[in-house]
Amino acid sequence: MSELIVPRTLKGFRDYPPELMLPRESLMETARRVYRSYGFAPIDTPALEYAEILCGKGSDETDKQMYRFRDAGDRDVGMRFDLTVPFARFAAQHVGDLGTPFKRYHIAPVWRGENTQRGRYREFMQCDFDTIGTQSVASDVEIVLVIQDLLQALGIERFTIHINDRRILSGVLERVGLEGQSTAILRALDKLNKVGAARVAEEMAQCAGASAEQADVILSLAQCQGAHDVVLDQLQRLTSGSTRGEEGVAWLRDVSALAESAGLAPPQLRIAPSIARGLDYYTGMVVETFLDDLPEIGSICSGGRYDNLAGLYTKQQLPGIGASLGLDRLLAALEELGVLPRAQTAAPILIPFFEPHRLADYLRLARRLRSTGLGVEVFPEPKKIGQQLKYADRRGFTWAVIQGASEFERGVCQIKRLATGETQEFALASDWAAMVRLLQSP
Amino acid sequence: MSELIVPRTLKGFRDYPPELMLPRESLMETARRVYRSYGFAPIDTPALEYAEILCGKGSDETDKQMYRFRDAGDRDVGMRFDLTVPFARFAAQHVGDLGTPFKRYHIAPVWRGENTQRGRYREFMQCDFDTIGTQSVASDVEIVLVIQDLLQALGIERFTIHINDRRILSGVLERVGLEGQSTAILRALDKLNKVGAARVAEEMAQCAGASAEQADVILSLAQCQGAHDVVLDQLQRLTSGSTRGEEGVAWLRDVSALAESAGLAPPQLRIAPSIARGLDYYTGMVVETFLDDLPEIGSICSGGRYDNLAGLYTKQQLPGIGASLGLDRLLAALEELGVLPRAQTAAPILIPFFEPHRLADYLRLARRLRSTGLGVEVFPEPKKIGQQLKYADRRGFTWAVIQGASEFERGVCQIKRLATGETQEFALASDWAAMVRLLQSP
Repeated sequence: MSELIVPRTLKGFRDYPPELMLPRESLMETARRVYRSYGFAPIDTPALEYAEILCGKGSDETDKQMYRFRDAGDRDVGMRFDLTVPFARFAAQHVGDLGTPFKRYHIAPVWRGENTQRGRYREFMQCDFDTIGTQSVASDVEIVLVIQDLLQALGIERFTIHINDRRILSGVLERVGLEGQSTAILRALDKLNKVGAARVAEEMAQCAGASAEQADVILSLAQCQGAHDVVLDQLQRLTSGSTRGEEGVAWLRDVSALAESAGLAPPQLRIAPSIARGLDYYTGMVVETFLDDLPEIGSICSGGRYDNLAGLYTKQQLPGIGASLGLDRLLAALEELGVLPRAQTAAPILIPFFEPHRLADYLRLARRLRSTGLGVEVFPEPKKIGQQLKYADRRGFTWAVIQGASEFERGVCQIKRLATGETQEFALASDWAAMVRLLQSP
Repeated sequence: MSELIVPRTLKGFRDYPPELMLPRESLMETARRVYRSYGFAPIDTPALEYAEILCGKGSDETDKQMYRFRDAGDRDVGMRFDLTVPFARFAAQHVGDLGTPFKRYHIAPVWRGENTQRGRYREFMQCDFDTIGTQSVASDVEIVLVIQDLLQALGIERFTIHINDRRILSGVLERVGLEGQSTAILRALDKLNKVGAARVAEEMAQCAGASAEQADVILSLAQCQGAHDVVLDQLQRLTSGSTRGEEGVAWLRDVSALAESAGLAPPQLRIAPSIARGLDYYTGMVVETFLDDLPEIGSICSGGRYDNLAGLYTKQQLPGIGASLGLDRLLAALEELGVLPRAQTAAPILIPFFEPHRLADYLRLARRLRSTGLGVEVFPEPKKIGQQLKYADRRGFTWAVIQGASEFERGVCQIKRLATGETQEFALASDWAAMVRLLQSP
């Protein structure tokens, strides 16, 4: 006999057993439901694309991390590293048929050959939603309302959605005479929470030639805080005279007022002039979302407005706004917060297989229960009852529906709540409805 | 400015726009719900595996079709070409933690660099479900019950589930003295429907050295038909004296009796001694499923029992049974049968944006409707109403909920059924419940 192959996954990849996959599916289901409730429609694109389509669209880093190879037809191909670049290609290709505005969501895995040191994986699920073909503030408000609905639908109440507008920093840089330096300044500002104001000022001096005075103004922008009105007034003063800057402030004023009127107000919504988002293609509002009980894991839902999604593939201008839920990061957070259910089964009911010649009856009973919407597993072998209940326990079933010789004789069954052992007897003919009601209770 | 990159997908790959992705998601959702209702739990495994894990597990063909390359760490890796081989690796690796019986489903894309001539794609979704760690007939019955529930849940009533048992042919070959030739015989038999009995007999003579008499017996096996009892009695005679053959017949007798007692009877279930399934690893019952109105597309849900899933990776014997729903094939069939809805939106309601200064009111109304479970899109810009209704039409919305200046003044809104133009007015304060009931109707 040949030698065994060691069963193992590649470095940076992982299996999802049921206890992880059940909550992951439930997150995806909730995301789908909320996205759909706003009129976002699903799309899918191939995992593999021409490398030409993917390269040079994210950053040098994403190019380096891409899984890229020649296929059997000698094509230069790559596995997608995000869902935005494929969406840009998709939009350019199909926008004529689709029409605008076009609202899509896309839930799918992406691959990055990242350094795996920080508990990051090389395969992870992204959940993106975008509205393209409109520059209306209505779409920006909607993005933050979707995030609020999504988190509330997941049972999370303690979160803060941070919004900012890229034009505000541009306006301030214009005013202080540093307009060419926004990338370097953004990179420095991004570290504010980690390294503090002094080190950020140093970096701004080194990399963008900012004087101490200039640095002070920029830092005072990033440190604005308080009630929305107060912050907006401060921002107004800091950008006054710059058209771009004032547009950014007016936009945030609209978004926060509209959101508040639709039911998303402080402290769940916060104007946060310090957030910037790393990606260069954002041109207007940007958004990040933090869990109040676990801010250190970083933003779990981020995005922003862009002027033109698909400029590399089409001359048609496609402005829009979108955001992405970091599903696997959120899953890890919910696990850490201890709010994930621990079951390994999606069916609450186990029917033990007692009487070897009664399999037909067990199967019939299971089907009858399923027809009421209940999930029911029939144990496949007439093993010892202790073994079957141990199995039920291990998998996390809620109920056992038990029929032995005496129950069959009397036309009844025992409903056992597995956590407590508490048992109730029901007559199948006369108590069916009451029994189903009990089994449908949590 | 640099030149535009032509937006296109790789040969054999395709995009799923909303009108295809909405029914595809709904198929997946239904599959998940039905699998779960039987206690199958979801798992996921990486798209990429060590090539060593994947190679030589399917067939020469799958090896040749595999997307295989060296990653940045110089590992020899491949993209999975099915979900069975990764499941075998997964089971070998985790069975100690998981325990048996273990029931899993896995819905995920797979990749094969196939010849794309026959309308096949190089990326497609598989929906597998398996029970491992048991040799009980209960699991075999369950597989066909799941298939029945699944198709009925999809609104399909006209289908036939064909079952057979591999041991029956083995028994017959044993009896006629051709026991070493089962692979060649299977290959010939697989063509029975296409080329007819005479040509199959020829091939059996050529490739397996079967005499005309031997071929006759084998063909009489494949051509058995009629009521279950009649077929089973014929099979009994043809295998009589071969232990393996008789085991196979007894197994089918049990499965069909148990299935019938649980509500799956002819003509939806059929004992079909001619079906074989190409794959070598099946050792017991095999199953194929055909749509009565479109049998030519082939089996849409197929599977079978195997003695040992993961023998290449572990010494632990893992017998089981599983099947796979051909999701994209079924989707194509439903499209051809004209039973797919044609909408491009998952939300039934559009709120046109009429009054430029009323955006807050539209957003509030949308949220209030969403809180009842309805899907509502707000058009993002105050464009001409004709343009907005054209958009609604194109996307397939069911309702428009309309508020213009006069409606705001009077505290009412107009509910327009878009297909007919029929319009009803509701007072928001007093008629809310009636309005929601109307919007919830189909």
